[in-house]
Amino acid sequence: MITMAKKKKDAPITGITVSKEEDFSAWYTEVLTKCELADIRYNIKGFVCYLPWATITIKKMYQKYEELLEKNGHLPLIMPSLIPERNFHLEADHVEGFAPEVFWVTEAGSSGLLSERLALRPTSETALYMMYSYWIRSYNDLPFKRYQSCQVWRYEGKMTRPFFRGREFHWIEAHNVFASEEEAMQQVYQDMEMTYQMIQEEFCIPIIFFQRPKWDKFAGSVNSYAADALMGSGKVLQLPSTHYLGQNFSKPFNVKFVDKDGEEKYGYITCYGPAISRIYGAMIAYLGDDKGLVLPFDLAPIQVVIVPILVKGKENFVIEKCQEIYDLFKDEYRTKLDDSENSPGSKFYQWEMKGVPIRIEVGPKDVEKDQAVVVKRHDGTKSFLPLKNLKNSVKKIANNFTIELKKSKLLDFEEQIEPCHELDSAREALEAGKIVCCGFCSIEEEGERCAETIEKDLGGFVRGKRVDDDKHKFASCINCGKPASCTVYIAKSY
Amino acid sequence: MITMAKKKKDAPITGITVSKEEDFSAWYTEVLTKCELADIRYNIKGFVCYLPWATITIKKMYQKYEELLEKNGHLPLIMPSLIPERNFHLEADHVEGFAPEVFWVTEAGSSGLLSERLALRPTSETALYMMYSYWIRSYNDLPFKRYQSCQVWRYEGKMTRPFFRGREFHWIEAHNVFASEEEAMQQVYQDMEMTYQMIQEEFCIPIIFFQRPKWDKFAGSVNSYAADALMGSGKVLQLPSTHYLGQNFSKPFNVKFVDKDGEEKYGYITCYGPAISRIYGAMIAYLGDDKGLVLPFDLAPIQVVIVPILVKGKENFVIEKCQEIYDLFKDEYRTKLDDSENSPGSKFYQWEMKGVPIRIEVGPKDVEKDQAVVVKRHDGTKSFLPLKNLKNSVKKIANNFTIELKKSKLLDFEEQIEPCHELDSAREALEAGKIVCCGFCSIEEEGERCAETIEKDLGGFVRGKRVDDDKHKFASCINCGKPASCTVYIAKSY
Repeated sequence: MITMAKKKKDAPITGITVSKEEDFSAWYTEVLTKCELADIRYNIKGFVCYLPWATITIKKMYQKYEELLEKNGHLPLIMPSLIPERNFHLEADHVEGFAPEVFWVTEAGSSGLLSERLALRPTSETALYMMYSYWIRSYNDLPFKRYQSCQVWRYEGKMTRPFFRGREFHWIEAHNVFASEEEAMQQVYQDMEMTYQMIQEEFCIPIIFFQRPKWDKFAGSVNSYAADALMGSGKVLQLPSTHYLGQNFSKPFNVKFVDKDGEEKYGYITCYGPAISRIYGAMIAYLGDDKGLVLPFDLAPIQVVIVPILVKGKENFVIEKCQEIYDLFKDEYRTKLDDSENSPGSKFYQWEMKGVPIRIEVGPKDVEKDQAVVVKRHDGTKSFLPLKNLKNSVKKIANNFTIELKKSKLLDFEEQIEPCHELDSAREALEAGKIVCCGFCSIEEEGERCAETIEKDLGGFVRGKRVDDDKHKFASCINCGKPASCTVYIAKSY
Repeated sequence: MITMAKKKKDAPITGITVSKEEDFSAWYTEVLTKCELADIRYNIKGFVCYLPWATITIKKMYQKYEELLEKNGHLPLIMPSLIPERNFHLEADHVEGFAPEVFWVTEAGSSGLLSERLALRPTSETALYMMYSYWIRSYNDLPFKRYQSCQVWRYEGKMTRPFFRGREFHWIEAHNVFASEEEAMQQVYQDMEMTYQMIQEEFCIPIIFFQRPKWDKFAGSVNSYAADALMGSGKVLQLPSTHYLGQNFSKPFNVKFVDKDGEEKYGYITCYGPAISRIYGAMIAYLGDDKGLVLPFDLAPIQVVIVPILVKGKENFVIEKCQEIYDLFKDEYRTKLDDSENSPGSKFYQWEMKGVPIRIEVGPKDVEKDQAVVVKRHDGTKSFLPLKNLKNSVKKIANNFTIELKKSKLLDFEEQIEPCHELDSAREALEAGKIVCCGFCSIEEEGERCAETIEKDLGGFVRGKRVDDDKHKFASCINCGKPASCTVYIAKSY
């Protein structure tokens, strides 16, 4: 199952043996397997089992995201996961976009065929907005902000990869209704703000938001805004996207409200879909190194591991000291005292591989010197810390862990960007693992042919126009030479 | 949608208008609607939307249950929700039991028919145990304890009722493998222990555990143990059940381990399935009263509501005081200051109906007297408390709230039980809303005919044999008159 090509020298066979830089795919597969994150042997194509080490972190990510959504006025609900086929047909673009990806329930129990096909939700617009037409009556009900944490199913044609892309994945979807376009767009901006707060600040993955070209927007939206994360080797991965749906759904689904002026009006809708399982995949891929996982402090299933270094005849007082240290931290952090029979060296490898942020080593000499050795996972730095003040010192390290990790990992996206004026230089830049920025005729429908040419010739995708200010300006489209209406970014993608 | 029969007198039309005792069904439906817990207008039969007020509590119930499971050594995982049909056919009783209830996915995307039918999991034995055969290698891996929080789908023939029974419901399922029958049975007892801890201690619903008769056990189990809750009006509702599966699944699914003696052996499996959405339904049904919801303190979406009583000209200093009180509690409890334009009376009704445990009222006279009025939802008692010490007094009330609620609600099950020696007296007892206890020939297969007769003639179900010691002893079977092998309980059920 693991491609054994390009082994690192001197790595123990139990640790990660492939270099991430040399062969990302093999590295990722090895991390999934050896860190026990996912099992791809489940017997339906594109469906995988999420193992405990991944599940614990994913649950913590959900918790953080849900807290932020609730802080920003969203209430949780739980919707049925099946959607009647007739609901889908109410919005033409939506059904066209999702039809190729829907799993259909057609039979049930011994009674056989159902009278109507039921979709496993690929996304919940067509389930929710029908209910919104009951729930929203007047301007007093607006803004109406709801979210649910759930899984969705999509019959993906593209190659699947655990967490990155699967036929069942786990996300949050927020669906909001407003009285005006302006308020709705404010929500879109808040969604982007929340994305930065979570993806960059909490999960340590750098992103840029793009307004997607018209041909690449969400099926049924007016405009879509999506974050791209640079995953190394020049490839980007789409992380959360937020969509301004305007009245495209409120009209067919009859989502109306009586306004202050007594008139009935259609609501303006936005939706936002952070895919937690995909963000988890991006996080382990982006933060990990050749030793294995690196995790933000809050998200690690075990945050502090204590490894006794035993020397014959002196086992007892080392173990005793380790137990004391364990008691010091067990209520504050998820702490483990690894008193298994493995050698200290193999314990180091094991817990480094699993991404435990802080390791505390204690040997007989340390006990004599009243000290402990504390090692930070993300940069490997080692400190010899007096036991007397250990609690405070470790607390400081814990508090700074994610800040330091972020600092080292939120490399300037800008450095990865190469402004190009011609297709040839763009091709070279893409091959060198860069993101190309260039002039482009239009991200409205009329630009699609240029984008198709670029995809065919360069293997790169037009990701859209930056949402923040763009300092790069170009006079003409890199492909057709017509006057440029905007600056776009081209990248290979997962 | 709401049956308006049997209205209470003098109740405001916005509050609950039906008496729970006189018409439970109408009361339940009205609570669901007016408290905004569930919406049954979703357009697939048996599927409902869980609204925010219910969802917030359900999420808290999940959290408590998951913490307890993890404390007891279970690790979380996330499994695919689809199961290939071939997996089902590996255990004959299981497939026979579940076949009438399975929703089948047969088509996907534009490619049409799938090569194999995929079941929407009705329960995950046949998905998990196939993977367990990969994950378990040796006695070192045992006990192997995993759980997942997820939804399941069952094409129910019985009448559905939101939260009580639906075609999609939300549960936790724990699946554990042990080296011996003895250890497995220890787990079954731990499952029952956890059930008491959660259902009785946290959620305030009284239960009794029964060993289910052979004809009513989980499809594929050796023995099933299920809790029954007495829901009022003499009907019981099955709450969590735990099953000893023996080697029934480990053999067809090849769940083997190398034991200490070097020999390969099949594992002994148990599974446990608390249905959180059903427990939620039982809780609102059991604890609720004619004013609406009553909720344990920890589970209430809002725990403390502050209602200003405004008198013209004195609004400002009342609002100011309420704001001060709000600030006092906002970090400790989920607190709301209701400064809407509704009248104080309608606010009282509203928040009582929604089950907010503590209401604090402040009017101009209270401000003058430096006091606040504090009302407990579960018994309506009112205290006039000095503002000076308000934080501590409310804290005391909050800490005692669930304890008091439990005390008043965990009525002795025993009082509801009527020992009977003949079918006629049993029939009368059932009609009077009692649970019948009586002698019975056997809860092995040979007793099934007697149970069928009882169901047909009395409309009651043989729930099984108590797991704890039974002080009631009988000489002969209430139906066939043969010597009694045990004492069973007969009840009507939801």
